[in-house]
Amino acid sequence: MHQTITLTTDFSEDMFAGVMKGVIANINPDARVIDITHGLKLGDIRSGAFVLMASCGYFPRGTIHVVVVDPGVGPSRRIVCAQTKDYIFLAPDNGILSWALTRHEPLEMRAVEKEKFFLDEVSMTFHGRDIFAPVAAHLSLGIKPNELGPEIDPGDVVSIEFPEPWLDDGGELQGEVLYIDRFGNCITNITRDDLGKLDPAKVRISSETLNVEGIHRSYSDVHPGTEVAVIGSTGFLEIAVSGGNASMRFGLRTGDEVTLRQ
Amino acid sequence: MHQTITLTTDFSEDMFAGVMKGVIANINPDARVIDITHGLKLGDIRSGAFVLMASCGYFPRGTIHVVVVDPGVGPSRRIVCAQTKDYIFLAPDNGILSWALTRHEPLEMRAVEKEKFFLDEVSMTFHGRDIFAPVAAHLSLGIKPNELGPEIDPGDVVSIEFPEPWLDDGGELQGEVLYIDRFGNCITNITRDDLGKLDPAKVRISSETLNVEGIHRSYSDVHPGTEVAVIGSTGFLEIAVSGGNASMRFGLRTGDEVTLRQ
Amino acid sequence: MHQTITLTTDFSEDMFAGVMKGVIANINPDARVIDITHGLKLGDIRSGAFVLMASCGYFPRGTIHVVVVDPGVGPSRRIVCAQTKDYIFLAPDNGILSWALTRHEPLEMRAVEKEKFFLDEVSMTFHGRDIFAPVAAHLSLGIKPNELGPEIDPGDVVSIEFPEPWLDDGGELQGEVLYIDRFGNCITNITRDDLGKLDPAKVRISSETLNVEGIHRSYSDVHPGTEVAVIGSTGFLEIAVSGGNASMRFGLRTGDEVTLRQ
Repeated sequence: MHQTITLTTDFSEDMFAGVMKGVIANINPDARVIDITHGLKLGDIRSGAFVLMASCGYFPRGTIHVVVVDPGVGPSRRIVCAQTKDYIFLAPDNGILSWALTRHEPLEMRAVEKEKFFLDEVSMTFHGRDIFAPVAAHLSLGIKPNELGPEIDPGDVVSIEFPEPWLDDGGELQGEVLYIDRFGNCITNITRDDLGKLDPAKVRISSETLNVEGIHRSYSDVHPGTEVAVIGSTGFLEIAVSGGNASMRFGLRTGDEVTLRQ
Repeated sequence: MHQTITLTTDFSEDMFAGVMKGVIANINPDARVIDITHGLKLGDIRSGAFVLMASCGYFPRGTIHVVVVDPGVGPSRRIVCAQTKDYIFLAPDNGILSWALTRHEPLEMRAVEKEKFFLDEVSMTFHGRDIFAPVAAHLSLGIKPNELGPEIDPGDVVSIEFPEPWLDDGGELQGEVLYIDRFGNCITNITRDDLGKLDPAKVRISSETLNVEGIHRSYSDVHPGTEVAVIGSTGFLEIAVSGGNASMRFGLRTGDEVTLRQ
Repeated sequence: MHQTITLTTDFSEDMFAGVMKGVIANINPDARVIDITHGLKLGDIRSGAFVLMASCGYFPRGTIHVVVVDPGVGPSRRIVCAQTKDYIFLAPDNGILSWALTRHEPLEMRAVEKEKFFLDEVSMTFHGRDIFAPVAAHLSLGIKPNELGPEIDPGDVVSIEFPEPWLDDGGELQGEVLYIDRFGNCITNITRDDLGKLDPAKVRISSETLNVEGIHRSYSDVHPGTEVAVIGSTGFLEIAVSGGNASMRFGLRTGDEVTLRQ
């Protein structure tokens, strides 16, 4: 079956993703493997959760999304498999699936325990190769999540809450930076719906107050070098600099607070 | 159809190229996607133009070359599709196709406007996902460029001129650095034909004069750590350091002037 | 034939690996190309030898492993092809295959000389594109190594010796750092067998003595920020920091000595 398997990791340019693809090719030569990203910061579970939420829906139905950002790899950390209407997700039980699963409700969650789907020798430091890759390959051949191990209650799975923005008493919208992309654009947790009737003229961050003067359509709507707020391609408000790097210019990092006001 | 689609972007390790592949796989599961590079510097249109010119000809006939280096992404920037004898090119109308099209003459150029080949929702900040990827996938399924939008005159397309080297009155050949590769080799705009009978002993750059003593065949023809001029794999003269990084050693950057003399 | 070709290079994000895939697709559209890594440090033959040794065995039988870490590229450097029971290896004759071939004994080695399997024009600076890629593609179509050129004696091939650890008179085990991975884990040349009955409490490196207190199962077995010794996924002892970067913290580099004692 020409099934798609995606990989989202913090392996950067090292050999680890390549080895996982070798393991997959060994078990299902016809699987197509697509790298979503290997560029996550080390162990950055929140950025991984964002990337997966923002990207998973663009893949074909039946895609198996594999996430290996796994600072807790070891004998006691559980691996979970979530079956949703459109996808199967496979990840360490560290919360990294949380935000994707708010958009793709799990029909069933399983602990991944059946060793017959693992490599014969399982190391304690590279489950990507020894468990995730072979299990994903077997799923791509048609085995069902319920063959992987016991059902688990979604409430028992490690979860990280999506930080919802909120309006304070003064009519200011309080949000935070969720993700900083390769261009230095600072993606917040604020959607167009959250804005309501607010047409923000100012964005306050810890270091200063930016005069964004409303929501623009794209980065190039303002003069090069100027700060700009747009609803970006992920549906969230981004703080950017036209032709520049907002994160570096303003010292913004993920988790930083952002306040919008009229 | 097992058609090849290539991607050339400045997305680096972020999720964007992965998402584009998801969109393509959704529309044409049989397309083969090959990354040429995602390592272009942000918005570096000239380096992108060089990479495309230097690499596109090594791909199978019928390949669809997609280039997303797009600092001007937004509602008013046009997207162009060029049909040549061997390839189809798809890029923002920002000049990045210019140098490839000097080697692959466009038979027809189209503005990409037909929304039925786009994703249902088109963002204003990530046309790679919403327009380039689905259009490339449809092209790989056999639709023709003339179905994408109105024909445009190649003279109306944004163009960047290829900088030709020139001989000055003193018999010195004046060129410039076009591209700096991963090894720090500085690739100039000078071909063997441009050299004519000149067998350059010296290369003058802004910071100093290098004693290259003729054109060598390869970097390792000279002692490690020594500067060397070779006609590199792209057909252009390169200034390199054997086993070293010429760009860093001499502070050379793209656009810098280079003068060759006997 | 759906044969697998792997690539291991120091090309990083530049266009070179993409061009090689174009050449391969031209000759064998059905070959599957898997990147092991393009992230090797420039010309780092020892790290390349380690990566290949550690990863090659996870790929399907018949895989063609292509390695282009080639600081000596030029007309006089030989290219070798090694046929083993399970794989074919193709690399510059610079020792980079040495450690993989200790695990996959070569049945036959050939010098790669038959120009009919090369591109029509062969540059002197990018044999990856002009020789390695087309030769690998032809091998994936079924030609045999003995068609590539004359047989060569494995003893005549450039070789780098695997550094075996050794017990000194004082009962201390002397080893060295072979590879530093993306996480900063320092992989040594010491296996569990080498340890014998030694249960090391201390690891001495040039800068200090680390209290590792035995071999742990995984990085997360100790408190975050604490040094830890584990037998890692490659079968070798690693010096790591739980949730941290051991290479940066202790200034460890490949080739550094490591001494274990009770």
